[in-house]
Amino acid sequence: METPRTEDVQHEEAVKTTVVALDQGEESFHALEWALETIRFGASDKVVLIHARTSPASRLSAFGGPGYIVSTDLILNMEKAQEREINEFMDRALQLCEKKQVKAVKLIVYGDARDVISEETKKLHANMLVIGSHGYGAVKRTFLGSVSDYCVHHVECPVVIVKKKPEKKDA
Amino acid sequence: METPRTEDVQHEEAVKTTVVALDQGEESFHALEWALETIRFGASDKVVLIHARTSPASRLSAFGGPGYIVSTDLILNMEKAQEREINEFMDRALQLCEKKQVKAVKLIVYGDARDVISEETKKLHANMLVIGSHGYGAVKRTFLGSVSDYCVHHVECPVVIVKKKPEKKDA
Repeated sequence: METPRTEDVQHEEAVKTTVVALDQGEESFHALEWALETIRFGASDKVVLIHARTSPASRLSAFGGPGYIVSTDLILNMEKAQEREINEFMDRALQLCEKKQVKAVKLIVYGDARDVISEETKKLHANMLVIGSHGYGAVKRTFLGSVSDYCVHHVECPVVIVKKKPEKKDA
Repeated sequence: METPRTEDVQHEEAVKTTVVALDQGEESFHALEWALETIRFGASDKVVLIHARTSPASRLSAFGGPGYIVSTDLILNMEKAQEREINEFMDRALQLCEKKQVKAVKLIVYGDARDVISEETKKLHANMLVIGSHGYGAVKRTFLGSVSDYCVHHVECPVVIVKKKPEKKDA
C-alpha cells in the first residue's frame, strides 16, 4: 500500500540520521528531549520526527458495527481535528529541535506504528531510533507487545528506549 | 548475596553516569564504541564499564555430574585464566575511553548478567544503559530471553540496544 507522506525526506549518505518516534504522548516528547540533550549532533546531521497515523479506514471500522450510521461530514471533521492536533504536536517538536539548533524534519505516515517506524527507519538508513517505551495505546500493547519491543527486534540500527520521566525528580 | 566488586564506584549526584555492559564479545565492544562516538559527555560525566562474571559455584556445577572428579588446582587455574581474559578485555575498553577522553571505571560483579546489569544500573542512578542485543550466551537467551530485553523492562533510565556492526559496510 502506498503510504502518503506529509514531507519527503532525502536519503543522504554522509549525514547521520536519528529517527525519533512521536505518538502525541508526553513520554515520546520526553524521548525527543532526551535525544537532543544527550546525542552529539553534527552540523549536517538531522533528526526525523516520525508519527504513525491511524488510517481513516481503521478508525471508520470503530463505528462500523450494526446500528451505526456515520455521516461523512462527521468523519471528515474528525479527520481534520486529528490532523490539526498531530500537526500542532509535531510543530512543537520541530520548534524544540530548532531551539537546540538541530536540523529536523517531520514525517507523518499512515499505518500501524510497528510497521511504519521500523520500515521508515530502515528506508532512511537511520543511525539510531529513539522511541518511548509505552507509546501507541495500552490495549493494543497488551495483545501485540510494545511498539518499542517490536522495533528493537526489527531494525538494525541502535535503538534507544526512553521511559516516562520519573515524577519525583526534575532534571 | 554480597557481590564482590573489583573496583568501587562513587555514587555522585551531579555527574551523568552511562553504564555500558560488556560481555567480552565484539558486539558489546561495538556498543561501547557507539556510545563514545554518539553521546555528548561532559568533563565530569563518566562511563561505568560493567561486566557480569559467572560465579565459580555455577561453573563448578558444569563439572559436577556423576563420574567427574575435578581437581581444585584445575578450577583455580581456570578462574585465573578467566580473570586475566576479563581484565584484558576491560582494560582494552578503558583504553578506548581514555583515547576518547571520556572518564571511565570498570566494575566486575559476580552474578547473572540480567540481575547484575539491571541492579547496578539502578544503584548507580545511571542516566543511561548501553548494551549489545545478543550478549551473554545463546543457549541461556533461548530459555530466558535476551539480557537486553530483560534490562529494558527492569531499569528506569533510557536503554540503548546496539546490534552487531553490519559486516557489509565499514563505518
